[in-house]
Amino acid sequence: MDIDDLDNVIFLGAVTVLSALQNVFFAYTVQNESVHQRPANTAFDRVSVANHNCIEVYPTFLALLWTAGLFVNQAPAAFAGLLYLVVRHKYFVGYLGENSQSLPGFFFGKRLMAFLFIMSTAGIVNYATNYFLGINFLFYIQTVTKASAALLLIP
Amino acid sequence: MDIDDLDNVIFLGAVTVLSALQNVFFAYTVQNESVHQRPANTAFDRVSVANHNCIEVYPTFLALLWTAGLFVNQAPAAFAGLLYLVVRHKYFVGYLGENSQSLPGFFFGKRLMAFLFIMSTAGIVNYATNYFLGINFLFYIQTVTKASAALLLIP
Amino acid sequence: MDIDDLDNVIFLGAVTVLSALQNVFFAYTVQNESVHQRPANTAFDRVSVANHNCIEVYPTFLALLWTAGLFVNQAPAAFAGLLYLVVRHKYFVGYLGENSQSLPGFFFGKRLMAFLFIMSTAGIVNYATNYFLGINFLFYIQTVTKASAALLLIP
Repeated sequence: MDIDDLDNVIFLGAVTVLSALQNVFFAYTVQNESVHQRPANTAFDRVSVANHNCIEVYPTFLALLWTAGLFVNQAPAAFAGLLYLVVRHKYFVGYLGENSQSLPGFFFGKRLMAFLFIMSTAGIVNYATNYFLGINFLFYIQTVTKASAALLLIP
Repeated sequence: MDIDDLDNVIFLGAVTVLSALQNVFFAYTVQNESVHQRPANTAFDRVSVANHNCIEVYPTFLALLWTAGLFVNQAPAAFAGLLYLVVRHKYFVGYLGENSQSLPGFFFGKRLMAFLFIMSTAGIVNYATNYFLGINFLFYIQTVTKASAALLLIP
Repeated sequence: MDIDDLDNVIFLGAVTVLSALQNVFFAYTVQNESVHQRPANTAFDRVSVANHNCIEVYPTFLALLWTAGLFVNQAPAAFAGLLYLVVRHKYFVGYLGENSQSLPGFFFGKRLMAFLFIMSTAGIVNYATNYFLGINFLFYIQTVTKASAALLLIP
């Protein structure tokens, strides 16, 4: 989007990105505490936990996807979002495997979430520099994110 | 919205709709596994499960509501959303009933979610045909969805 | 935003605000039932419950934040959102304390959520009066919300 179109939503987006960051902090705290828990046993428990973990980060993912897409450029954001869906599918299927094998962790798709978060933050910082200093980096940010989106494919 | 206004968000919307579809797949997997679970017993368990099931699909509902409304037309989308709220209320209240009666299933409002999903998909497909082939079906899609929204009232 | 920009989303926003109100009703029902439950014991249980309670209201918070910001004015909405993040942090940290002390309740940030809800509702009502009666209170609503946002700082 043009930077002028963001006049009415830039603060909302900034608070949204902040809240997403806070959600990640909460999720890490849970993960640190969950080390000593025994894993889920029955098939229902496993699938329920897998679904629960996926759903829990879903609003955070949606918020970051849209702020990254609106504040910088939709193409790399949607690409990262697609990769996230693939990673989430592998995570969900991995949880349904045999009990003996180690279960996936609490949090997944960290790299893709970080990419979307950095995109959003860059867009917000650029809005501020454009407003206060008249310097608009948006074109460079878009070029860099488009180029670096391909790096997300590296496993 | 005009089809030109969607230029900056169409990919984001497409990924959002895809992720909603994946959420539904996850929910069905949980439902299939939950057949052999014993039902919740105490009043707190029941109300907690009912709230949990409602909250779990809430972001998916919001995402489909807004994509359907923005990509096609807000009136049928908001109408389906209102019906969804009614269905959700009946689901929640039904869960609080006596333990002896059968509990409602894991997933509810399937028809309304499907309606919103088809609206969103039609809007995205129409954007693609408009872009690549220059054919814009949006007016027909809007007419069909407005007419078929009344069919959602059939119990 | 200008009131004319809302033509395409006003119904979607109205349904969103309604659904947020319904979520709050569900949450209160759970809270009323949870009085006689024994509190969580282990550190993992506590942090898991704290994260769960925060995540459960997160989509409701995001929906109210954006509807309040778009329908009235982004500055007071973003300010209330920031305060909500602070309250949420205190809530989460308070949950991690010693088991002997009383745990925080199920629902938090009631005042901030109510502020965002009233802002959203005022914006929707104003859209209706502008459409049907030609009376536009938006400027007064914006002034009142900007002035009253500072009152949210009172503990």
